[in-house]
Amino acid sequence: MGEKVAQLKAHLAQPIDLQHAAGLLSWDQEVNMPEKGVNARAEQLSTLSSLAHKMIISDETARLLEAAEEEVADLDYDNDDASLVRVTRREFDKYAKIPNALVIREARARSKSLMTWRKARENDDFESFKPHLAEIVDIAREKAEHLGYEDHPYDPLLQSYEPGMTTAQVAALFKDLKEGLLPIVQKIAEQPEVDDGLFSEQVYPKERQWEFTMLLLRDIGYDFDRGRQDKATHPFTIHFSPTDVRVTTRLLENRPQSSIFSSVHEGGHALYEQGIPLKFMRTTLAGGATLALHESQSRLWENQVGRGLPFWTHYYPILRAFFPEQLGNVGFEEVYRAINKVEPSFIRVEADEVTYNFHIFIRFELEKMLVTGDLAIEDVPDAWNARYEEYLGITPPNDALGCMQDIHWAQSMIGYFPTYALGNLISAQLYDKVQEDIPDIEEGFVRGEFAPLLNWLRDKVHKHGSKFTAPELLQRELDQEISADALLAYMQEKYTKIYDL
Amino acid sequence: MGEKVAQLKAHLAQPIDLQHAAGLLSWDQEVNMPEKGVNARAEQLSTLSSLAHKMIISDETARLLEAAEEEVADLDYDNDDASLVRVTRREFDKYAKIPNALVIREARARSKSLMTWRKARENDDFESFKPHLAEIVDIAREKAEHLGYEDHPYDPLLQSYEPGMTTAQVAALFKDLKEGLLPIVQKIAEQPEVDDGLFSEQVYPKERQWEFTMLLLRDIGYDFDRGRQDKATHPFTIHFSPTDVRVTTRLLENRPQSSIFSSVHEGGHALYEQGIPLKFMRTTLAGGATLALHESQSRLWENQVGRGLPFWTHYYPILRAFFPEQLGNVGFEEVYRAINKVEPSFIRVEADEVTYNFHIFIRFELEKMLVTGDLAIEDVPDAWNARYEEYLGITPPNDALGCMQDIHWAQSMIGYFPTYALGNLISAQLYDKVQEDIPDIEEGFVRGEFAPLLNWLRDKVHKHGSKFTAPELLQRELDQEISADALLAYMQEKYTKIYDL
Repeated sequence: MGEKVAQLKAHLAQPIDLQHAAGLLSWDQEVNMPEKGVNARAEQLSTLSSLAHKMIISDETARLLEAAEEEVADLDYDNDDASLVRVTRREFDKYAKIPNALVIREARARSKSLMTWRKARENDDFESFKPHLAEIVDIAREKAEHLGYEDHPYDPLLQSYEPGMTTAQVAALFKDLKEGLLPIVQKIAEQPEVDDGLFSEQVYPKERQWEFTMLLLRDIGYDFDRGRQDKATHPFTIHFSPTDVRVTTRLLENRPQSSIFSSVHEGGHALYEQGIPLKFMRTTLAGGATLALHESQSRLWENQVGRGLPFWTHYYPILRAFFPEQLGNVGFEEVYRAINKVEPSFIRVEADEVTYNFHIFIRFELEKMLVTGDLAIEDVPDAWNARYEEYLGITPPNDALGCMQDIHWAQSMIGYFPTYALGNLISAQLYDKVQEDIPDIEEGFVRGEFAPLLNWLRDKVHKHGSKFTAPELLQRELDQEISADALLAYMQEKYTKIYDL
Repeated sequence: MGEKVAQLKAHLAQPIDLQHAAGLLSWDQEVNMPEKGVNARAEQLSTLSSLAHKMIISDETARLLEAAEEEVADLDYDNDDASLVRVTRREFDKYAKIPNALVIREARARSKSLMTWRKARENDDFESFKPHLAEIVDIAREKAEHLGYEDHPYDPLLQSYEPGMTTAQVAALFKDLKEGLLPIVQKIAEQPEVDDGLFSEQVYPKERQWEFTMLLLRDIGYDFDRGRQDKATHPFTIHFSPTDVRVTTRLLENRPQSSIFSSVHEGGHALYEQGIPLKFMRTTLAGGATLALHESQSRLWENQVGRGLPFWTHYYPILRAFFPEQLGNVGFEEVYRAINKVEPSFIRVEADEVTYNFHIFIRFELEKMLVTGDLAIEDVPDAWNARYEEYLGITPPNDALGCMQDIHWAQSMIGYFPTYALGNLISAQLYDKVQEDIPDIEEGFVRGEFAPLLNWLRDKVHKHGSKFTAPELLQRELDQEISADALLAYMQEKYTKIYDL
């Protein structure tokens, strides 16, 4: 490593430690913290964020970064140092444009709105959440102004999660995807409804569900010496280093699919983080590259693998052994069809693969309007409900199942949602490619062997850390642009079979 | 509040946040962290400690502190501001004398030795722990040199936990205590051994023990909205604010006393922290005053209350209801005697009230010798075992039950141990006084009423936060000096009855 890059790395290790410490405080707030700890925690989080922010945007960083840029000027981004400098520049510019006061304000707003959201959702009380959402939208708009944009104020918010993508590109991809999905949804709607009473009408004890998810995580290659699973309202993955990557899941007695697919989904995120080379520790290259790439990993494990025929050929007898009373008399076909039941619903994380993306389209449209000011906070519930009626033919019976169903707004994560659908597109592109490279890979799934897939993902995606944007990585490893084709072909094939379309 | 004091408080709030964040990282390391997270966590802890340290000893602190000192020069320590300035001066001088490099070195050493100690104790492998202990003693000796002393290098180490006390004072108190205890121990040794097979020869399911300890914590007034209980190898209490004070306990199937008295002991610490006035939050006055005062709270709840006749008059039927199979045929007297069985043993935290202090005497003597260099690391196991033989008539069968039985050395806490016995002395002095002030207080315990005691402690001890040293607080509230008399009188009376001496 060059001397200047080494100095830059050493200088940034401390703010990166602070960010990971803040991560642990957030994890604890979700998983462990007693209710009344919230105010003190908000102060602590804002101190950590503010100090990290100050250190990252310091004159010293600017100086070291410029020196490092000179040092790597002749190298391309295959080179770790050159990539580190480029990613650091991107992050530096992003942070340097946001005033410290706004960083502190956001950290405080996030802590408090999270606590409020949790109660507001329980009590279906949008009124109490409203001022917090207003504050968060206001912060997002201020951020957009500080970050700057040419085309749309949503661009810089999107790009803070998904560098290299624009609002217009996303809108075009979503248009393709929506047009391809609608006929599938319509055809399925004409078929007889799948009976999934085997799940919803029985009780699956939480303790056994927990054990089953622990087995699944182990099987797909999640390393418990470098992580742990806990329970949380909204499942999430968080890492404090590649050697400490934690997942959470949600246990519902009459919905075992929820814990199963939450755990496999978060497991997919965690495999990515556990696969980041240790050489990147405490640098800006540690961690998965972008949100869409992250989601491509979680969704690939959750859907292409976890909702697939080969996977359930292996796990059906095991699931039945875990729940003999509930599934003793239920055949394989019935379980597989119930798992893949397509039905419009209110909760994104519980949605089937086909209707899932409509949740993203709706949030993307509303977020753009909130940011431009074309939608007032008080009109959010109605706008939300109207779109659910339009796209999915259902109207949320209350705001808890409507505009408050999800944690992201409470977490001040506006601009994040599109990455979910982008991840779906990429997951299908990756899955096509791995089947090309390893034609018998699904036969391995039937035997419970997932290492070949994990190793392939390690090699194509994980090993790069944060070096490349999503479009770059796809170009480099797959020689493709992001497109809706692979996902639509996959949906077409899978659901034609299941629903006999 | 004066303007200068307000500036000092605002300046120190951030490093105090960092210290509390570091506290959460340590708590997590004990309770949750996956094994391989240790190296990254060590870096994160050292970053937080080092930044907090730098901010506390900055020129800015020195400047603000001097200005604040002028502002409060005419006030006595009843005044919160004057106390805040005094305590800040004490902490500042303590920290300013320790070089930042040593702070970083200690944070790293602590994280790594903790992980090693845990395994070394499991495997009875002192060899693997030895280099870590050597490093920790070396750090303690360097600290003593930096802090400076007149009489004994142990003085500044002791005073970093117990300001206002000297090694010589402690030695004199311990001499009184030892001389008073030895005849009691000897007389008890002449009595027939108490049969505690009702505990040791039965299985008490951990789940039920857990529930019983949760009930006890609630009953004594621990607020679960501002705290939580978890499991840990070595029970401890930690706070991140008066609104987030956490305890841990240890569950052993054939030793329910362990979880019961751990929880009540840690509960006593936690009641102190939860009782700190919110006006002290994010200042140097937040938190209990000194270790001995802290221990006076935990030991008072554990011993004078928790091992007492009135307490068990109330809880005996409840314990029997929790464990009907185990205790259905066991009488009250038998349980009470088993709980108060006096028997020399290897583990301090499991020791009875009478022999407990000998564990402290031994560690105090060894620590003094380690710090002066009169005891080599490799001779620690033999020196340890020889003293257990001399004072308690027993020899540890291995180092896991010998010099590695306790976490404090692994935590780099040399100088801490004497505060345990000092806490015992003070607990007895406080307990005498509360009985004088509220003569029927023990009749309340029989009915499960502990609020009068908690309120008295809130008023005499908790409400002061860190304002006063232990000798000051005793002078102020009890008009007494620290002495062994009250504890010896309590022991004499209680054990004369139990053992019919």
